[in-house]
Amino acid sequence: MDRGISSDEPTRLSTIIEPLFGEQEKDWSVRLDNRARAELLAGADAQDDCAIFRLAGEQELVMGSDYVRGPKFRLYELGLIDDYDIGYYLAMANFSDIAAMGAAPIALLSVVRYPREMPDVEFEVVMRGIADACAEVGAPNVGGDIGTAERLILSASAVGVVEPGRSLRRDGARPGDRLCVTGPTGMAAAAQRYFGATAQPAGRETKSLPPAAERRLLDAWKRPRALIPQGRLLSGSGVVTSCQDTSDGLKAGIESIGRLSGVGFEVDELALAVDGDVAEVAALTGADTTALMLGDSVDFQLVFTVPERDVDPLRGLFRSHGLDFYPIGVATQTREVVLRRADGEVVALPGAAWRHAG
Amino acid sequence: MDRGISSDEPTRLSTIIEPLFGEQEKDWSVRLDNRARAELLAGADAQDDCAIFRLAGEQELVMGSDYVRGPKFRLYELGLIDDYDIGYYLAMANFSDIAAMGAAPIALLSVVRYPREMPDVEFEVVMRGIADACAEVGAPNVGGDIGTAERLILSASAVGVVEPGRSLRRDGARPGDRLCVTGPTGMAAAAQRYFGATAQPAGRETKSLPPAAERRLLDAWKRPRALIPQGRLLSGSGVVTSCQDTSDGLKAGIESIGRLSGVGFEVDELALAVDGDVAEVAALTGADTTALMLGDSVDFQLVFTVPERDVDPLRGLFRSHGLDFYPIGVATQTREVVLRRADGEVVALPGAAWRHAG
Repeated sequence: MDRGISSDEPTRLSTIIEPLFGEQEKDWSVRLDNRARAELLAGADAQDDCAIFRLAGEQELVMGSDYVRGPKFRLYELGLIDDYDIGYYLAMANFSDIAAMGAAPIALLSVVRYPREMPDVEFEVVMRGIADACAEVGAPNVGGDIGTAERLILSASAVGVVEPGRSLRRDGARPGDRLCVTGPTGMAAAAQRYFGATAQPAGRETKSLPPAAERRLLDAWKRPRALIPQGRLLSGSGVVTSCQDTSDGLKAGIESIGRLSGVGFEVDELALAVDGDVAEVAALTGADTTALMLGDSVDFQLVFTVPERDVDPLRGLFRSHGLDFYPIGVATQTREVVLRRADGEVVALPGAAWRHAG
Repeated sequence: MDRGISSDEPTRLSTIIEPLFGEQEKDWSVRLDNRARAELLAGADAQDDCAIFRLAGEQELVMGSDYVRGPKFRLYELGLIDDYDIGYYLAMANFSDIAAMGAAPIALLSVVRYPREMPDVEFEVVMRGIADACAEVGAPNVGGDIGTAERLILSASAVGVVEPGRSLRRDGARPGDRLCVTGPTGMAAAAQRYFGATAQPAGRETKSLPPAAERRLLDAWKRPRALIPQGRLLSGSGVVTSCQDTSDGLKAGIESIGRLSGVGFEVDELALAVDGDVAEVAALTGADTTALMLGDSVDFQLVFTVPERDVDPLRGLFRSHGLDFYPIGVATQTREVVLRRADGEVVALPGAAWRHAG
């Protein structure tokens, strides 16, 4: 097989990066509700080491970075997700942090290092995944870093802007606030569990899901979504007291808000929205559905708190936009995070947590 | 030897990151010449996934990302630079891009992934290198990403602000402009050449430099400096037509400005400021001094262009700040980049270039 040519960095910048991102960047700007504005002056197409935005008016700037395992994802190693998918994932994982701040994304900076022998066509597939995720979110990839390394290494930073005082933090939850989430969790973990199990040559499970369900599970890894519209609604409402994404798992998200806000939470198992395919995978693989939903499943939902009186209006607002909204618990004075089981028993929150040492 | 404990990410965030960066971030703000302002609201100490700045007034925002080979640096592999040094280098390499834009840095986002078994004390050394470089530059590390990987992986993004219309680009050089540089180049390449050669067990050169000279050479890797003050002077002058750093080598920098500006350059060999130790290494190792200075030496000097009439005032301004300033050539209508040798002969610019394929 002809593996194709492997151009150097300047060549890839001008023949791959610039055509892919130049159009996205053309006359790009965003205007906030307070008429503050961010306008892109020079992006990846400028072939400078930095992108330039012109900012006018008062605004808050939010920024974060995420490295993603990408080629070290189990499902990538199994051949179930590909180079396009991990490029797409890289961008969305970074935009998800911006969504959780309630901000409008203005830029992605992507770091893509690759083995010297990786052909241009394969490199372009990774960049196309990034470009398509940027297009989906409506924010430009404005540059970053490309170059060689011993293997494909993916990292990025995302930047966003939000009206002054409206960025969503983790430390404002108060006792009595309702804990809510934008959708069912557990899909990513269920995908790992299902495909990881069926990939085992020995003791292989013969039961399997319908193809459509398998595709849905895989899409948790292939086409994650950064919930920018939801974040903007939460920010614009002015009533949300804390928010973060569930990229470390729902349990870790709840615990993090609890720790930084100085509150605890009681999560109501009956209120958790269960995804049918997640329940199916739990049944097939002998897992606890609730643990699968709460554990370290990388789902990019938003988990947030709202004062009791604001829950219904906010849920109505979400509904009017066709968006899901699930109250799943309540913030408590005691700092423990617990689950009220369907049978009324109160237990420690199940599921593998991000914080596993003291 | 007790290799010490290896805490998980949340623990490292609270016990290492927060103490190291919390103080740097306290009440941090910058005010530009036009009174526009960037104020840090939440940094690494907030343990959120994003940092938050409050921006007021018109400004340009610049941002870039650089992955650094770090543990794959030859001098690291030889044991001549350590974990602290590569942390320091990571931050400075990223700030250098901000310097080259003429901006005031406001943030570093660092991505530090490490082997699971790396003890807290070693991880802290890397972060301390980053923290000290941030302190040196006067800009906070506001977060990023930590977590495990199969080896130490270092990447970062730097962000800066600059007065509207004052960011330094690469595409404004005009024929007749003088080409200038902030200092001698070639130190980083000379260090690699010198220590790489003396590290060879067979055919080892017995000639060696005095310890002080060896230290100076190593410092090109251990304590690189992002030339923020120089960048701010160049930006503030309003006369600089192009600028970039020499992190891909002086030749690559000149070629890049030439290509993006649509001009050529004639570099005057006699005008190049030669560092004595670089010349010494060239002599010891049989290299061409000029090639060493122009080639792919990662020196973080700034190379820039200035209209002829503005050269002397700008040089005077640099002198009054105790800063070096070397006019080394002139922009030409023909798009070639050439060297006028000491003997008058005009030749292609020597030295390994970043762009080595068409």
